[in-house]
Amino acid sequence: MSSTWGNNIKISIFGESHGVGIGVVIDGLPAGEKLDFDEIQFQMNRRAPGNDSTSTPRKEEDMPEVCSGILGDTTTGAPMCAVIENSNTRSVDYDKLQRLPRPGHADYTGAVRYNGYNDVRGGGHFSGRLTAPLTFAGAVCRQILERRGVTVGGHIYAIGNMYDDPFDPVSVNADQLLALQEKFFALNRPEAERGMRRRIEDARSERDSVGGIVEIAAVGVPAGVGSPMFGGVENVLSSIVFGVPAVKGVEFGAGFDVARMRGSESNDPFTLSGNRVITTRNVCGGILGGITDGMPIILRAAIKPTPSISQEQHTIDLKEQRDAILTVGGRHDPCIVPRALPAIESAVAIGLADLMKEVGKL
Amino acid sequence: MSSTWGNNIKISIFGESHGVGIGVVIDGLPAGEKLDFDEIQFQMNRRAPGNDSTSTPRKEEDMPEVCSGILGDTTTGAPMCAVIENSNTRSVDYDKLQRLPRPGHADYTGAVRYNGYNDVRGGGHFSGRLTAPLTFAGAVCRQILERRGVTVGGHIYAIGNMYDDPFDPVSVNADQLLALQEKFFALNRPEAERGMRRRIEDARSERDSVGGIVEIAAVGVPAGVGSPMFGGVENVLSSIVFGVPAVKGVEFGAGFDVARMRGSESNDPFTLSGNRVITTRNVCGGILGGITDGMPIILRAAIKPTPSISQEQHTIDLKEQRDAILTVGGRHDPCIVPRALPAIESAVAIGLADLMKEVGKL
Amino acid sequence: MSSTWGNNIKISIFGESHGVGIGVVIDGLPAGEKLDFDEIQFQMNRRAPGNDSTSTPRKEEDMPEVCSGILGDTTTGAPMCAVIENSNTRSVDYDKLQRLPRPGHADYTGAVRYNGYNDVRGGGHFSGRLTAPLTFAGAVCRQILERRGVTVGGHIYAIGNMYDDPFDPVSVNADQLLALQEKFFALNRPEAERGMRRRIEDARSERDSVGGIVEIAAVGVPAGVGSPMFGGVENVLSSIVFGVPAVKGVEFGAGFDVARMRGSESNDPFTLSGNRVITTRNVCGGILGGITDGMPIILRAAIKPTPSISQEQHTIDLKEQRDAILTVGGRHDPCIVPRALPAIESAVAIGLADLMKEVGKL
Amino acid sequence: MSSTWGNNIKISIFGESHGVGIGVVIDGLPAGEKLDFDEIQFQMNRRAPGNDSTSTPRKEEDMPEVCSGILGDTTTGAPMCAVIENSNTRSVDYDKLQRLPRPGHADYTGAVRYNGYNDVRGGGHFSGRLTAPLTFAGAVCRQILERRGVTVGGHIYAIGNMYDDPFDPVSVNADQLLALQEKFFALNRPEAERGMRRRIEDARSERDSVGGIVEIAAVGVPAGVGSPMFGGVENVLSSIVFGVPAVKGVEFGAGFDVARMRGSESNDPFTLSGNRVITTRNVCGGILGGITDGMPIILRAAIKPTPSISQEQHTIDLKEQRDAILTVGGRHDPCIVPRALPAIESAVAIGLADLMKEVGKL
Repeated sequence: MSSTWGNNIKISIFGESHGVGIGVVIDGLPAGEKLDFDEIQFQMNRRAPGNDSTSTPRKEEDMPEVCSGILGDTTTGAPMCAVIENSNTRSVDYDKLQRLPRPGHADYTGAVRYNGYNDVRGGGHFSGRLTAPLTFAGAVCRQILERRGVTVGGHIYAIGNMYDDPFDPVSVNADQLLALQEKFFALNRPEAERGMRRRIEDARSERDSVGGIVEIAAVGVPAGVGSPMFGGVENVLSSIVFGVPAVKGVEFGAGFDVARMRGSESNDPFTLSGNRVITTRNVCGGILGGITDGMPIILRAAIKPTPSISQEQHTIDLKEQRDAILTVGGRHDPCIVPRALPAIESAVAIGLADLMKEVGKL
Repeated sequence: MSSTWGNNIKISIFGESHGVGIGVVIDGLPAGEKLDFDEIQFQMNRRAPGNDSTSTPRKEEDMPEVCSGILGDTTTGAPMCAVIENSNTRSVDYDKLQRLPRPGHADYTGAVRYNGYNDVRGGGHFSGRLTAPLTFAGAVCRQILERRGVTVGGHIYAIGNMYDDPFDPVSVNADQLLALQEKFFALNRPEAERGMRRRIEDARSERDSVGGIVEIAAVGVPAGVGSPMFGGVENVLSSIVFGVPAVKGVEFGAGFDVARMRGSESNDPFTLSGNRVITTRNVCGGILGGITDGMPIILRAAIKPTPSISQEQHTIDLKEQRDAILTVGGRHDPCIVPRALPAIESAVAIGLADLMKEVGKL
Repeated sequence: MSSTWGNNIKISIFGESHGVGIGVVIDGLPAGEKLDFDEIQFQMNRRAPGNDSTSTPRKEEDMPEVCSGILGDTTTGAPMCAVIENSNTRSVDYDKLQRLPRPGHADYTGAVRYNGYNDVRGGGHFSGRLTAPLTFAGAVCRQILERRGVTVGGHIYAIGNMYDDPFDPVSVNADQLLALQEKFFALNRPEAERGMRRRIEDARSERDSVGGIVEIAAVGVPAGVGSPMFGGVENVLSSIVFGVPAVKGVEFGAGFDVARMRGSESNDPFTLSGNRVITTRNVCGGILGGITDGMPIILRAAIKPTPSISQEQHTIDLKEQRDAILTVGGRHDPCIVPRALPAIESAVAIGLADLMKEVGKL
Repeated sequence: MSSTWGNNIKISIFGESHGVGIGVVIDGLPAGEKLDFDEIQFQMNRRAPGNDSTSTPRKEEDMPEVCSGILGDTTTGAPMCAVIENSNTRSVDYDKLQRLPRPGHADYTGAVRYNGYNDVRGGGHFSGRLTAPLTFAGAVCRQILERRGVTVGGHIYAIGNMYDDPFDPVSVNADQLLALQEKFFALNRPEAERGMRRRIEDARSERDSVGGIVEIAAVGVPAGVGSPMFGGVENVLSSIVFGVPAVKGVEFGAGFDVARMRGSESNDPFTLSGNRVITTRNVCGGILGGITDGMPIILRAAIKPTPSISQEQHTIDLKEQRDAILTVGGRHDPCIVPRALPAIESAVAIGLADLMKEVGKL
């Protein structure tokens, strides 16, 4: 495994779904940052299961114990470790889990990679539960970013073929982003919720699941952040966002739509707003040549349907080396997109903290 | 800048468009690899300008001089440095370049990041010309991968709204990938060429440019490569592919289409083919939980229209702090997608070499 | 802080002396390694205080809770986190600690580095207590190394001006190294113990402390490990050994004595032992050009006297910006060399595991 | 190989002694630094052979061509590549070199590490010649450091058993360090030169070589630089200094002498000099807990006798697997210490630039 990430803000995530605990060490945080733990809890709750009728009723006690790196509620500059104990884990038919890899899960690839020694209970270290410590680290970084005028937020851009309105890449602002965080279905156009819920309930009733897209914005990031060719904003953010399980695509600004554009459409004209340089359309999502231009950073991430579905599925029996039929038990989210949103926002916040620290802005 | 990439195979790219030279150091190559320099030249030629009527007539002499790391034509295990001298660079109105940042280019963000000291001639270190050393490094890695049964190739998936047929993610194979490399318009459906050319010519005649999408496949990668959460295949490949200028999105397998899928569609059933484990649809693009499953790796990258267009564009005069009108002179490709293809293939080859070396398969 | 180390085996150490807990995340361990926790406890005990009359009577409960990365007692390949709760910490006069930096400690430099937010209680993250998680990680790596035929051990080479016999760099072997670990005063010449103890007791009675040197050997490391110029064995081992507090020098083979040698003395003649290539003197400490030659690796580390002495010392009052006199209270080891030995062995074990994994020998 | 070093200032060194060329890429340099190439040449000359009667008469044309990263003589922020062409290399009996590994050289270990494919001519990538690009990179970093008030310099502390006076760790200053650079035998006590020369001439006349120690000081480094536990000043500097061939030990401050000290001797009392915090003895070499305290940084490196001696030596015939006698031909420095001095100063300068950039002081 390589669950360590970062150059300037380094995180090291650990834990398995059914192990003793999960958590994260965050190294490189600036000293003297007063943390609001209620706010951290708020972010953790956004990601936690059981907060909505479309979400799994499984309860997690996700508030981590912070072992180090703070004195009172203020960072010391030393590494911060947060541990969340696992609980509410049920006993499992381990032999079956090992024999019959679940389609769409990492059971098979993990077994090959780790010679069959990976913990497959609940997905082990591949579990979506590992986004809890990521969300914790993100919540810490958000507060540090906020203090520098940077706000990260997002909305559900699509569930199935039901779309929300995208962010206006020029006018999106901190108030809008903070307001979105109050809602489980974070939407720019609240009317989209009904259609999204229907797609989720339809999937659930058919013992299936459904995917989606989240869109993230970061406002207030100053121009001049990012170090191309390989330390550019897109490189850095994608390298952490793809660490969130189920993400299969990441795009910035107009993203894949640039294919259909002309240069006269995708080039962002510069102009002055007072004495500030802005672009008038922000097609580039706030990033030119890997470096921020001071406009909102816009990215989208595609999230595949949760692979845990209770329909019969074709798989193989690894022990007996023959084809087999698998039925996955347990209760699972038919759609993880709403809960993936705060996790991906968190990944972006960590990424931006790393990038800003590199250029002395943290 | 951070033009250094890699953990196991490390590349360090240098140079500016109008400087003395450009090149790359590749550190960590296995010793004893016999290199075919004609094959390297072949890959360099695919990327070079002037090879097609749609491409800029500017000529580059792109065969690098290899300074180190080989004895005869065989790698020694020591770092390999390749240098390409710049030539055919015309004198420029430097003062104007610095004052009037080109929309869609890194002129402005580079100036902020490097306090106005960045070399803006021809885009400097941000120039697409820097993909030449990347292509060299990729050509070296390709040969090493081929020897382990891994072939990387790709095709133009879209130019504007004209699409080629996508790869069949199950049956795509080395022969197909190698055949594609013979053509400047690498297409699965050759009939698409005419429509693509028309879109390019239309853009050119309107002093505009057009974007596109490339699709890459890597076949023969064994199962068990990749180290999640952050050293997974998607993380690693996206972190290098976004280093190719103009890439604004990267997706794996079904990519953004997973949003519209059900789990029953996106989950890949396992089955046995002889005694080999395969999946029947490969929706996941050969990657589950960040680890290869032995099926073809499939990814797509979105490439924005080249920002160098000769229409009048709005920008600002950085010196006089006022709005201004810019006309970019010179001759430029109205579409860089065909030439970006070998560069992105190269990035993928380097990324895979790094990943395979990590698990002892290189 | 940057308490993260490693390329192939990555450790991330956290915690402060008087915080909630201390610990380590170890990422990159091979899967399927059965761990003997009694053996780990044995190594932890060697480092723990209170085991000898010369050592501080302060008791630590140092057996960590392993939160992740194992199933039963076998590694899963996922990151392993071990947490040790802090206890037995007394309340302190925090204001005084912050105002009067202790000479020889990191109180002052930490305050400058972390703007006065560093936790100075007990030395905070700079405390020698942080060698407990390092020793844990080392104990895990030792077992993995042992399974590959590699044994790491050491002895107290000097305390004050009392010297033990150095290792014979050619004949030192695993049995010898394992036997040394049984003793708190690990010595090749047991008669040296009495003199060493006297130097410690003399220091104690004079409210002073005394330094020393440890010598480490690693036997069984195959030839061909290490990646010069900067990933060589000396680079890698020194970069982790200097992470052990109080280490002020690291040397390999004959070390600083090479200054007085002739080439005819320091060059190690090669010969054959059976069909194995050996050197007859091993002056180079098993490392030539940064790469192992298959002979025992030999290194020594200089350890400064513990700076915690109860004599009056000159310092400054940071608040009032004037000179001041400080008397450090509490009970402290007058000599930490015996307890530093297992910590430095551990650092070497982690370093070797990282190096061997790089070349596929782990 | 891993000839890439650094986190904030990254260098990638390439080349073999008898290859086409050697050089370095430096990534991460601040933009806008005007470079004095005469000064760089001056530093290169200090390292070059043939400048003294004790040095090999072999001439190197060592002034590199800078390919990138500068515009005029000012850094652009893009990676700087400097290439030195090899010349004056004589033909060699390659078969003999491969069969008979030279004692004390990396011929044997390199052959094991790189499966016999390493270039052994002149030592290949292990050659001391690779310190030329290191010295170039150091010369660039020195100028950037000087602009921030930091000067790095050194002297020959010992050749054989002939010692110079050590630096006064409190009073050593920039003028003293700059003056030392003017002399090939850089000494605090010029009278030591005669004895040192005699030791070198004696070694030469006996077809032997002799080792030594260099002592380096860096003055003007502000307090608060370094990130323990593993990013501390000692960790970072040792990891690059051990990249200089022949270095077998590195110590800071009193180094190995701390073993014989009492805490009351090795603790540095703090006091105020005006409103500046200083220590009165600087036994710690300017580093406490891995972080600078604002006093001069002091380190020493042990350099083994050059292994190239013309006496008959015992070795093995790798091809025929039998013991053999080797006589190394050619003319070699009987002592490389004076020429290693500027290389090690350079390594320290690069290391300090990396460390200072981390905390925003570059």
